[in-house]
Amino acid sequence: MLIVMRPSATPAQVDAVVEKIRALGLTPHAIPGAQRVAIGITGNKGGLDPQLFEALQGVGEAIRVSQPFKLVSREVKPEDTVIDVGGAVLGGRAIAVMAGPCSVESREQLLAAAHAVKAAGARFLRGGAFKPRTSPYEFQGLGEAGLKLLAEAREQTGLKVVTEVMDPDDLPMVVEYADVVQLGARNMQNFSLLKRLGAIKKPVLLKRGPSATIREWLMAAEYVVAHGNYQVALCERGIRTFETATRNTLDLNAVPVLKALTHLPVVVDPSHGIGIRAHVPAMARAGIAAGADAIIVEVHPCPEKALSDGQQSLTPPEFEELMRQVRVIAGAIGRAIA
Amino acid sequence: MLIVMRPSATPAQVDAVVEKIRALGLTPHAIPGAQRVAIGITGNKGGLDPQLFEALQGVGEAIRVSQPFKLVSREVKPEDTVIDVGGAVLGGRAIAVMAGPCSVESREQLLAAAHAVKAAGARFLRGGAFKPRTSPYEFQGLGEAGLKLLAEAREQTGLKVVTEVMDPDDLPMVVEYADVVQLGARNMQNFSLLKRLGAIKKPVLLKRGPSATIREWLMAAEYVVAHGNYQVALCERGIRTFETATRNTLDLNAVPVLKALTHLPVVVDPSHGIGIRAHVPAMARAGIAAGADAIIVEVHPCPEKALSDGQQSLTPPEFEELMRQVRVIAGAIGRAIA
Amino acid sequence: MLIVMRPSATPAQVDAVVEKIRALGLTPHAIPGAQRVAIGITGNKGGLDPQLFEALQGVGEAIRVSQPFKLVSREVKPEDTVIDVGGAVLGGRAIAVMAGPCSVESREQLLAAAHAVKAAGARFLRGGAFKPRTSPYEFQGLGEAGLKLLAEAREQTGLKVVTEVMDPDDLPMVVEYADVVQLGARNMQNFSLLKRLGAIKKPVLLKRGPSATIREWLMAAEYVVAHGNYQVALCERGIRTFETATRNTLDLNAVPVLKALTHLPVVVDPSHGIGIRAHVPAMARAGIAAGADAIIVEVHPCPEKALSDGQQSLTPPEFEELMRQVRVIAGAIGRAIA
Amino acid sequence: MLIVMRPSATPAQVDAVVEKIRALGLTPHAIPGAQRVAIGITGNKGGLDPQLFEALQGVGEAIRVSQPFKLVSREVKPEDTVIDVGGAVLGGRAIAVMAGPCSVESREQLLAAAHAVKAAGARFLRGGAFKPRTSPYEFQGLGEAGLKLLAEAREQTGLKVVTEVMDPDDLPMVVEYADVVQLGARNMQNFSLLKRLGAIKKPVLLKRGPSATIREWLMAAEYVVAHGNYQVALCERGIRTFETATRNTLDLNAVPVLKALTHLPVVVDPSHGIGIRAHVPAMARAGIAAGADAIIVEVHPCPEKALSDGQQSLTPPEFEELMRQVRVIAGAIGRAIA
Repeated sequence: MLIVMRPSATPAQVDAVVEKIRALGLTPHAIPGAQRVAIGITGNKGGLDPQLFEALQGVGEAIRVSQPFKLVSREVKPEDTVIDVGGAVLGGRAIAVMAGPCSVESREQLLAAAHAVKAAGARFLRGGAFKPRTSPYEFQGLGEAGLKLLAEAREQTGLKVVTEVMDPDDLPMVVEYADVVQLGARNMQNFSLLKRLGAIKKPVLLKRGPSATIREWLMAAEYVVAHGNYQVALCERGIRTFETATRNTLDLNAVPVLKALTHLPVVVDPSHGIGIRAHVPAMARAGIAAGADAIIVEVHPCPEKALSDGQQSLTPPEFEELMRQVRVIAGAIGRAIA
Repeated sequence: MLIVMRPSATPAQVDAVVEKIRALGLTPHAIPGAQRVAIGITGNKGGLDPQLFEALQGVGEAIRVSQPFKLVSREVKPEDTVIDVGGAVLGGRAIAVMAGPCSVESREQLLAAAHAVKAAGARFLRGGAFKPRTSPYEFQGLGEAGLKLLAEAREQTGLKVVTEVMDPDDLPMVVEYADVVQLGARNMQNFSLLKRLGAIKKPVLLKRGPSATIREWLMAAEYVVAHGNYQVALCERGIRTFETATRNTLDLNAVPVLKALTHLPVVVDPSHGIGIRAHVPAMARAGIAAGADAIIVEVHPCPEKALSDGQQSLTPPEFEELMRQVRVIAGAIGRAIA
Repeated sequence: MLIVMRPSATPAQVDAVVEKIRALGLTPHAIPGAQRVAIGITGNKGGLDPQLFEALQGVGEAIRVSQPFKLVSREVKPEDTVIDVGGAVLGGRAIAVMAGPCSVESREQLLAAAHAVKAAGARFLRGGAFKPRTSPYEFQGLGEAGLKLLAEAREQTGLKVVTEVMDPDDLPMVVEYADVVQLGARNMQNFSLLKRLGAIKKPVLLKRGPSATIREWLMAAEYVVAHGNYQVALCERGIRTFETATRNTLDLNAVPVLKALTHLPVVVDPSHGIGIRAHVPAMARAGIAAGADAIIVEVHPCPEKALSDGQQSLTPPEFEELMRQVRVIAGAIGRAIA
Repeated sequence: MLIVMRPSATPAQVDAVVEKIRALGLTPHAIPGAQRVAIGITGNKGGLDPQLFEALQGVGEAIRVSQPFKLVSREVKPEDTVIDVGGAVLGGRAIAVMAGPCSVESREQLLAAAHAVKAAGARFLRGGAFKPRTSPYEFQGLGEAGLKLLAEAREQTGLKVVTEVMDPDDLPMVVEYADVVQLGARNMQNFSLLKRLGAIKKPVLLKRGPSATIREWLMAAEYVVAHGNYQVALCERGIRTFETATRNTLDLNAVPVLKALTHLPVVVDPSHGIGIRAHVPAMARAGIAAGADAIIVEVHPCPEKALSDGQQSLTPPEFEELMRQVRVIAGAIGRAIA
């Protein structure tokens, strides 16, 4: 159930509705909107009677929400969520570009990548300081030293930093350095971490699990939002299928499906998605044509020396060419690279 | 092994190479090209020594082909195959649009669809007279009566007819009426039908099986080509994955992968691919942005009354709007809707 | 809708019900049972009113059938279908064993395999004369010569012959030689072949398509039964998943699910299912423990020289050991190898 | 590389090898065996020369390990790992049975379940105090109160407690109460938690991720072992495929594949695997026939009132009947329920 308050509703009227919900043993979630406040209700087993609320003062309407995800659904909030990251924007009309190396490997590598992607027009710098690796014997990331290099790159370039958290104990540190905190695909249903991300004040980039359905993914986002953090973007990065010619199967079908179901921004990661450098530009173009609000692309000054994911990282000149292509595609659908 | 003849090679020199191959107990496949003739060799167990052929007159070079698919590979024929269907073209710089109803249901329905898609700019009319249906109790198609209606629609509109064959016994009849013969996804590895399609003189649209890898799909195309028909186009129509929010998972990753591996034209079917009318345009745009040479789209004058696939068919006005969008995307990547 | 006639119903009463169904524009399917006749009705869009039929003489009850598959469902026929193949039995309490080489390669090879599997206790001889192969350049089977060898092996051993048909034109010939006609996994939704199999007088072994759901598989069986052939067995042979450590993923979950949904016998093919010789016995044991009515196992006198599937074929001594194991498992669940 | 010491090697000789490995900049992992000590080496990029070690005193042989997983591989340790949990044993000849409710819901529910499964012959009690749930609005488990109830049930019945940890912060508490700490499927690649499990002194039950390959799963186990905890059991609980007739696809193929690749015990979870109560016994039987070392089964005194997974939980009488069946199957393959 969602209670939509009238535009003219007073804070006291909102509070009265909230109290009423609590009195019924349910949980209210007040969601401030541009025009008016909405209040989501969760915790009910069966359907609720709209008349319980429609008689209260200031209430516009009480809507039954049919989806198991509530707060992230378009039913509850029809307008797009726009996340403002210190001037760089995720969601809405503009299209954002995030780029950088898979892992932060060294000061020289990171700064070279950062300046190159900045020059080509990216607004966000990606780079992992904590790396989820299949093998315990592979490079696990530089940790805090990596975060410091990301902060230095931000200072030099003005790029906003997107970086992954893997361990709850590292979260305060990652929040301190990052502008956007990424939750990796393998942790998409790490519910204890999702709850903690609901308590931070930074936007979250929630990658899709390799075998997560779109609905499970939205429920994972719902965890973050229900715990208080409304700034969530969803990142499609390829699902696991029987096909072995590509690293993953980038599921661009998810883009229009998500845009219809949720108000959250949708990001596409063509690098992990297809996993083959030569084909990253085609999938980046396709992602934007499908309606994505942002792309996130791996760029490395010297991919053949990368400690991780070199085979899917673009060189700076390749990234520059990709930026040219995505600008044209964005323009063709009436949008622009921010 | 592939023998590339010099541009100046004479027919007699080509014949001599062919004889030499036969004398070795192997099978030659002469492939005429714009500049020169190439001769594929199959039937060898291990690698062949290029010197066996390079001393013969007129031979430019003898190349080892590393892929299990030979004749359809770009190694063997680097230039794009362009299929000319009586003036409407598949492959090359232009992008073709195929559209029409899932099934031919009636004269009125088909002609309405045909005129509508023609007016909007399609060059090919799709429509099934023989329908593969999961249930024996569902509408199985009009059969020859449907083919006749397709021919009438062609006469009225000039559209080229794309229609499916299911049964080898029907093949001569389908070949008589169709301009392009479609082999459906469930028959992609119907090897006896593939061999027969190698003997016809009409182009073949080979749909990907729902769980076929890209390599298996290319091997299926190889069956047709190895049996003598070089006019094959590959149609991505969605693979089967765990995701249930969409009918299939349209695998656009296949588009750049195929364009690198094969010279055959690549077609994208967003209608079966995602299976949800509202999202067909997004996937059509994405398919073209990814590099497809054509799209094939379901259009029905009255989708809610369709005997099959109504939920994924566009209305004529929706198709007109889609054509506007794909024209813009095609232009953005330096191509044009033919 | 299913009409169950009383045990005492006369043929004339059955005919009257059939006529009534036809008069309603629907299709009757009379299904003779041990005790009484049942008549399936298909072709209705919505539900039918049982009272339309319950007043007719000889009618016991009229049951609504909830599944899209009708004639193969347990709702319609609760007792197991038992297929008697000249004394060797598929279905019911006994467990049948089918074994032999993947392909018929030579007289010597086939007879060696046949005598070996006979000696170890198999009742059915498997062997392909027509082979579906991913590549057009691989061994395609011996054709009619292979069928003749199978017939010779039958004469010598008394084993019943199970062999695959790929091409409708070959069906009369295959029916002549085979005791059980196999339809391969890739042809599971070759609807034109399914319809033809409905018209033959030999039992059909219907392999599951590598990405077919259990319901689609039952619908494929329904095609055969609805076209008149009630002797169908279902063979689980592995589905396609993301896992690459095994050739396919033998889906033993399908066994109890099928036994609940359908009265048809269920066969398990551990050889194609897991595709690794050393692990075939484990999966054969597990298949029987899960409730399968038969297993079909690849046995080759000399697997390392096999023209196809050598890596998953057992040697005769390995097969003998497997027979010992499955006898014990069968006994443990109160059944016996027939 | 694995260094196998002679049975007669002295501790000082082992130390000398360990030092030599460290001096090369690599990491030694001494693995005590029944007969002799083995020392795994990790951290090398390319292959190592066996001669570097074979000249050292007490060294039997130096073996190249071909798999990316080292310490969990059978190459490194051919004998089965047997985990002794206070007298109840996982691995080796005996087959263990774990049973209990999905979630600990109340004292009454848990004790009823515990006494019932104990009476039927189980040695381990399963029950979740921390529950991973797709939706933030569903029952999340009783937390420490649930752990205390598990401890009480252990006191009353002598059953060993298997329970899941989700959050690293809860790990010390879970370790205190549990006899075996379970890591759930969705956390299989939660690498920060895997590392922590390497530091505990309790056995770990590592569930397979729903889209994890067998190799990724073994690498996850390798994380735990490489961080110092050699007591790991692997639990197959169903993978995610396209099939929707079952909750998951229990992949019994994994059982023989794992038994060949690793020395760790293999557990099968038929309850989550197939997810349908009526079919759990068939899959439990099949799991044991395939070679599993244990099964873990959901049992609830009143499944229709369960707060989670009621549809797949057995009643106590159903579990008793299942125990009877699995005893027979175990006996048939020369093993016994412990």
